[in-house]
Amino acid sequence: MEFSELIKTATVESVLLSCTGLPAVKGTLCITSHHLLLSSCPGGDAQPGTVELWLLIRNVDAVEKRVQNLGWYQPPRTSDCPRDTRLAGSSGTITLRCKDLKVLQLEIPGMEECLNIASSIETPEPEARGRMAPFPPRAVLPADRLAAVGDDALRKAARFRQGGRFPVLSYYHPKNGTAMLRSSQPLTGPNRKRCREDEMLLGAVLDEGERGFIIDTRSAQAAKQARMTGGGTEPKSSYPQWKRLHRPLERGRPLQESFIKLVEACNDASINMDRWLSRLESSRWLSHVKAALSTACLAAQCMDREEASVLVHGAEGTDTTLLVTALAQVILDPSCRTLGGFQGLLEREWIEAGHPFHLRCARSAYSHARLKQEAPLFLLFLDCVWQLSRQFPFSLEFSERLLLTLFDNAYASAYGTFLCNNEKERCLCKVKESTHSLWAWLNQPGEKKKYLNPLYSHNALVIWPSVEPQSIQLWQGLFFRWIRSSQYLDEAWAEIQRLLEGNNPPVKENAGNRLRRSLSDPAAQTENKR
Amino acid sequence: MEFSELIKTATVESVLLSCTGLPAVKGTLCITSHHLLLSSCPGGDAQPGTVELWLLIRNVDAVEKRVQNLGWYQPPRTSDCPRDTRLAGSSGTITLRCKDLKVLQLEIPGMEECLNIASSIETPEPEARGRMAPFPPRAVLPADRLAAVGDDALRKAARFRQGGRFPVLSYYHPKNGTAMLRSSQPLTGPNRKRCREDEMLLGAVLDEGERGFIIDTRSAQAAKQARMTGGGTEPKSSYPQWKRLHRPLERGRPLQESFIKLVEACNDASINMDRWLSRLESSRWLSHVKAALSTACLAAQCMDREEASVLVHGAEGTDTTLLVTALAQVILDPSCRTLGGFQGLLEREWIEAGHPFHLRCARSAYSHARLKQEAPLFLLFLDCVWQLSRQFPFSLEFSERLLLTLFDNAYASAYGTFLCNNEKERCLCKVKESTHSLWAWLNQPGEKKKYLNPLYSHNALVIWPSVEPQSIQLWQGLFFRWIRSSQYLDEAWAEIQRLLEGNNPPVKENAGNRLRRSLSDPAAQTENKR
Repeated sequence: MEFSELIKTATVESVLLSCTGLPAVKGTLCITSHHLLLSSCPGGDAQPGTVELWLLIRNVDAVEKRVQNLGWYQPPRTSDCPRDTRLAGSSGTITLRCKDLKVLQLEIPGMEECLNIASSIETPEPEARGRMAPFPPRAVLPADRLAAVGDDALRKAARFRQGGRFPVLSYYHPKNGTAMLRSSQPLTGPNRKRCREDEMLLGAVLDEGERGFIIDTRSAQAAKQARMTGGGTEPKSSYPQWKRLHRPLERGRPLQESFIKLVEACNDASINMDRWLSRLESSRWLSHVKAALSTACLAAQCMDREEASVLVHGAEGTDTTLLVTALAQVILDPSCRTLGGFQGLLEREWIEAGHPFHLRCARSAYSHARLKQEAPLFLLFLDCVWQLSRQFPFSLEFSERLLLTLFDNAYASAYGTFLCNNEKERCLCKVKESTHSLWAWLNQPGEKKKYLNPLYSHNALVIWPSVEPQSIQLWQGLFFRWIRSSQYLDEAWAEIQRLLEGNNPPVKENAGNRLRRSLSDPAAQTENKR
Repeated sequence: MEFSELIKTATVESVLLSCTGLPAVKGTLCITSHHLLLSSCPGGDAQPGTVELWLLIRNVDAVEKRVQNLGWYQPPRTSDCPRDTRLAGSSGTITLRCKDLKVLQLEIPGMEECLNIASSIETPEPEARGRMAPFPPRAVLPADRLAAVGDDALRKAARFRQGGRFPVLSYYHPKNGTAMLRSSQPLTGPNRKRCREDEMLLGAVLDEGERGFIIDTRSAQAAKQARMTGGGTEPKSSYPQWKRLHRPLERGRPLQESFIKLVEACNDASINMDRWLSRLESSRWLSHVKAALSTACLAAQCMDREEASVLVHGAEGTDTTLLVTALAQVILDPSCRTLGGFQGLLEREWIEAGHPFHLRCARSAYSHARLKQEAPLFLLFLDCVWQLSRQFPFSLEFSERLLLTLFDNAYASAYGTFLCNNEKERCLCKVKESTHSLWAWLNQPGEKKKYLNPLYSHNALVIWPSVEPQSIQLWQGLFFRWIRSSQYLDEAWAEIQRLLEGNNPPVKENAGNRLRRSLSDPAAQTENKR
């Protein structure tokens, strides 16, 4: 059944649209197969015919309806009364809680219209998709070193890792030739099974006498327990050159709960200061941000300072693993901090690497349908990148607006970029052929400039963030986007951008030079501080 | 005794200076009668002869010393050993915790030198000053209405208010002719004494049938209890045109404790995220910021929206009273948001109005000497102004740097502006004649531009801040100034300022116009949000 067939009432007049903090608008509501539109009434307060709302229906996370029958309503007495169910005095309110955290209210005259519209919007549950084997179209392996490891051995090694995710190259650090690899957990199981091919593969990454680090994103306890269900971790005895470090990162249900709790606290208008801070604390969201950034810094430190290669994995290798490898690259590599480079990073480390976007982002913080697979790992990544952009306001070419757009599109999009759970699904569903790419849209010259950071100046150095709890801030631009107006701040940034555009290039270069000088010269850094 | 006579050791070589987050520097330490200087050693890592530290001794809030006698030290056996007490192997560390929240460590070779230096820095307790009657040189009264109230009546009215602070004009709202007055509490005492002259004075402010609001910055309970010690509040029966509202604001010891707890939490490097947020909460600092802003908004609202005059008082009328009246003016009046206007506001509402700076700012958050009179009311005011500047980045002509400078100077200054507790003391001590003014220094063209907000654009409207707890942020620029580098953010602002300076004026005007348009046109505000 097409969605359009579910639409029982396509148009309603005199619908009142309201949204926290903004004046209400009255207009005509239309439902199409993908969008909910509200055009304000001619002659009303707003401009005649202005489209006040243009909402992707799949952006709706939860629908709440409340119908009321006002006291003075008299039901019609004759049976031949015309089928006008828009009975005087009956009306309904639909509250739409969106995946991008926006909350809208529609006051609809007529009870039946209200119920029809609500049922049309209430999207069917996303179909349960079979979990297909997720093989990216290409995987990078250290070719010269792997001459000894044949294709057959590689196949065996793949069978020893959950979902076939054997260790592949995630990032090569040009400064000192160290590598960051990622994989899923080894399938050692309760009998501590070994796999020579897997050991050879990891051995081939390191020279004789060299040491590498395995960063396991689970606690030592959790990694041990995983053996009972067929998983496990690399025992020291079989991988003598690798030192294992456990850095537990939250995933799955607890992370989704954290997100829900935080959004609830942010939306509570009647809260007092103590209660707000204690709810912010008990949501634990900022702890997750801190933990993700710390682990990414650890991976980056192993490579940049210890000059050691790194393998990152948790269990499936598609969630916290990607969070760490992608973040470490933003920290280490200036090319990942450009607008184009960041898109490439997302394509490589999140989309092709098989983060199950369809499962993880099916529902956002408002949904009552408590599915099991939702978890805001991608949002957590965007939040960590925002923390970097706040601590290094010059070093990222893109602005907060890009991060917000990515969040919106991961949860509900008119583009195909974040559809499905892995490359195989995308291939089967012919996503590339049948949808448009978000990147193609973003990279149009007129569009692109909206996402640029006006203060950007290329910084070739590693950006080491402070991960102390006092340095981690709540991402107000995301969590308060629809609650509190950021109009003044938005305008301030627009103004800065406009000023920079009108400026001659040499000035910008000077700013960059000054920055580089002060970054690389510790003496210059101390001067201001005393 | 002059301070210089206390100096036992004026110069020590090879002193190691360190400060969190910055590389340590070795140099020669000198103590003068007002300053502590450290010049780095020629041939050392830093530039030869560079002055690395220039610290006002009265900025030191607490001195901690630790001397160590290393194991291999052998005491001299003969009595004719030369009087070189700089014994090999003994050394000491002095930690200086400053009033501006900076923490410095000096590692000093030689135990005696260390002890001498420490005792030279340990400033004597500030002399207890008699509490003199604080009469400002002028007080503004509504002359036309007070024709009926003679000088004699005024004297009687003054005797009915604590410390003689009868109601005086704090601000006249030109938009609708309403007035904000401030005073101390009426001395009703346990017998509910009345004073006709005080009643007449307040009656004269209002026309017949007009109502005014008394904002009492104590709880109803506290105001009632104050009667037992001679104070009290205005009973409805004697002041029928005035409606009393109680908005308790913290003052005195609890406010100082809040400041100390917050600074301790900010300095705790070993804290985890949950603990940090729970300590931030339990310090209650942000609650005090929220309460102060809310009460100032209430006063502003009474005048601007209810078109009613307002009288603000607590007990003495020199602390929370001034916090509210000064903040309300920043919210209401664009002229108080300019650099010059803000200085005028401070001069009028804090200095001349008799905020006891000497008592309140004698010690900051690190001092072990727990005096009774300290309370960071002025810091709380600056924090509230910072919250306004964050929520309205265009509307204040001055920048965060001015607020930091004001904080520093209120606690330890080379200028006379914040000396003493009131105008009478300043007059007796000949402060104006014998010291320089901070304003004169700040307003020099070269200096002044450091304190300007590059994004400023005159905004004639009232700036109503959001006072929801989620909108109140910790002032990182102050509380983390010496802990975490704000170098990148500072440079970003400097760059914006430089760009604006190089820009032609019409562009800036346009920005202002755009802002005004969007501020006064609610439709324009909604557009971006949907």
